[in-house]
Amino acid sequence: MPVNAMTSDYRARRDRLRAEITELASPPEVVVVSDLVNVRYLSGFTGSNGAVLIGAESSADRICTDGRYRTQVGEQAGDLEALIARDCLTELALHARDGGAASIGFEADAVTVSSHRSLAARLAEGVDAAPTLVPLVGAVQRLRMVKDAGEVELLRQACAIGDKALGAIIERGVIRPGATEREVARSLEWEMYALGADDIAFETIVAAGANSAVPHHRPTGATLADGDFVKIDFGAVVGGYHSDMTRTYVLGRAADWQREIYDLVATAQAAGRAALRPGADLRGVDAAARSVIADAGHGEHYVHGLGHGVGLQIHEAPGIGALATGTLPCGAAVTVEPGVYLPGRGGVRIEDTLVVVGPEAGGAPELLTATDKTFTVI
Amino acid sequence: MPVNAMTSDYRARRDRLRAEITELASPPEVVVVSDLVNVRYLSGFTGSNGAVLIGAESSADRICTDGRYRTQVGEQAGDLEALIARDCLTELALHARDGGAASIGFEADAVTVSSHRSLAARLAEGVDAAPTLVPLVGAVQRLRMVKDAGEVELLRQACAIGDKALGAIIERGVIRPGATEREVARSLEWEMYALGADDIAFETIVAAGANSAVPHHRPTGATLADGDFVKIDFGAVVGGYHSDMTRTYVLGRAADWQREIYDLVATAQAAGRAALRPGADLRGVDAAARSVIADAGHGEHYVHGLGHGVGLQIHEAPGIGALATGTLPCGAAVTVEPGVYLPGRGGVRIEDTLVVVGPEAGGAPELLTATDKTFTVI
Repeated sequence: MPVNAMTSDYRARRDRLRAEITELASPPEVVVVSDLVNVRYLSGFTGSNGAVLIGAESSADRICTDGRYRTQVGEQAGDLEALIARDCLTELALHARDGGAASIGFEADAVTVSSHRSLAARLAEGVDAAPTLVPLVGAVQRLRMVKDAGEVELLRQACAIGDKALGAIIERGVIRPGATEREVARSLEWEMYALGADDIAFETIVAAGANSAVPHHRPTGATLADGDFVKIDFGAVVGGYHSDMTRTYVLGRAADWQREIYDLVATAQAAGRAALRPGADLRGVDAAARSVIADAGHGEHYVHGLGHGVGLQIHEAPGIGALATGTLPCGAAVTVEPGVYLPGRGGVRIEDTLVVVGPEAGGAPELLTATDKTFTVI
Repeated sequence: MPVNAMTSDYRARRDRLRAEITELASPPEVVVVSDLVNVRYLSGFTGSNGAVLIGAESSADRICTDGRYRTQVGEQAGDLEALIARDCLTELALHARDGGAASIGFEADAVTVSSHRSLAARLAEGVDAAPTLVPLVGAVQRLRMVKDAGEVELLRQACAIGDKALGAIIERGVIRPGATEREVARSLEWEMYALGADDIAFETIVAAGANSAVPHHRPTGATLADGDFVKIDFGAVVGGYHSDMTRTYVLGRAADWQREIYDLVATAQAAGRAALRPGADLRGVDAAARSVIADAGHGEHYVHGLGHGVGLQIHEAPGIGALATGTLPCGAAVTVEPGVYLPGRGGVRIEDTLVVVGPEAGGAPELLTATDKTFTVI
């Protein structure tokens, strides 16, 4: 049974956002949050239409959704007064305007050019001076980087389901010559549901043989064969939080080149994990793993970043890659997932989900995905 | 095995878009399509990052994605020259600018305020006169309303899987007192996968007893009991196309009020289906069903629109509701799903997916969801 965040957690998150906003160069008086993941983070509401108004003080906070979710919003976000409307961004902005707000922040990375135009037009209707619309970028996403205790617990549960599900299908002999990629993917997903996952975290990747050289391969009807790499990248969702893990196995018997690239990726992955310290430069974390692969001459076969934040979304801040900027905050939940892909032959990726931990807790990241990473022939 | 659209279908869709654009009041010379569903519709490419450039003529069409999808884009959209970049909207716009385009259309309903700002800045770099950015709204969505033969076939397959899956779990006695909503939902989803669904169309709704009065109820651990309404709203995805069907049953024995509201909704739903004619006013279609419910005094218990287009997305154009504008084109695939919800007691929704058919084919809409709608006590 997932632990759900308490009303007090959501209020604390809204207060943190309110505090962050006041520290901006030109802070808006209020903010309307319309990105649905951010709405969930700030209120607990999970409907498919909604927005949250962050007022100048907490008593002015409001939520909006449409008539379909009248009951649900009361159950999930009962501490917030709810407005019922279709266009919640506009409704809350008008509410703020009519309450006297002269400037209204909006999420420039969530609001489309169309919505912005229509919002600006509505705000100007019937008033002498429309409030200023202030674009904010990534404000809630930055808060979401640092997980609170309830969030980490949900991530733990999601990762544990992934571990158990993979263990179960290996135990049952699902990963065997003749099985299709799709069968393996489906079995893994069914197992996760049976173990209590609310959902799968993303489209499960099962890639066998040459397909394993495609970083994001969709499972097909292709059958697994002796000597294949079988790359499995998957996750579960519990209470909105996503797990993410990749393991790569060899079927039957392994060739020398397979051992070599596996060991290389495993070494790089360990270096990446070791680099996960609070305050570490994100590019430096990427480089810690990437240099291992580049030094072995496989730099061009490693075509993606080292990892990404994970939480209410499968990909969220911070991104860990060669072009990343910023540092790793304590409490961030991230993946570490280097890979080497040899087109036409096969590829290896090894991925864990971890939480960055401060020196007071030992400093070594908490490993949430516990499945063994030793080179394994199934 | 799903029928996949041919290369020629995708080219025909791009040509239709090109033709539509030239009919705009101030047509841009080229358009960059960055909404991923529209990218799929126009190219067949299904990766999670990509955009398509619609040139002045078809030889100038391009696709862009990042390094993760280099292999996949060649397989899925091999007829289009591919550019490899992270920010595909910017990359294709710069490509168009450098090819001499003085005006570039973009999807104002898909591009965020942030992306638009950064795009405009990049286009102005190193040139005397940056191309004009022309906002387009819903251009591809309007094309997508009218399904071609391949699309209708995929919808048929998706709906057939839904029918078979629901039939199978009823046959197996899954919907019984003591089962949880979640168990019923999961069984239905597993059945759809086993029948060849690529995915489920949306989070399956199973709502029993008083929960059935919540239009969009998430399945819980609540158990089904004798005398409950059990409302099931679900769908399958085949080749990217979504099915959508709702059936409501009574468990054990039915009370008179249940028969009454069921019959009312069934009558309204039949009226809605009968109104699905090419050229019909969308508001009129909604009214055909809504008036039946309002006349019976339950208008306030019917809190949503009558239906929506369905295709590559579970909700797409046209919306059929009291505030809709426009008419129903021939070839549109839509749902018809009135409901009556009595808070605290229970609710009924009956939903089909249908294709609007022209007079030359009889004029009566093609019913894709074939499951019986007679009042049924399980």
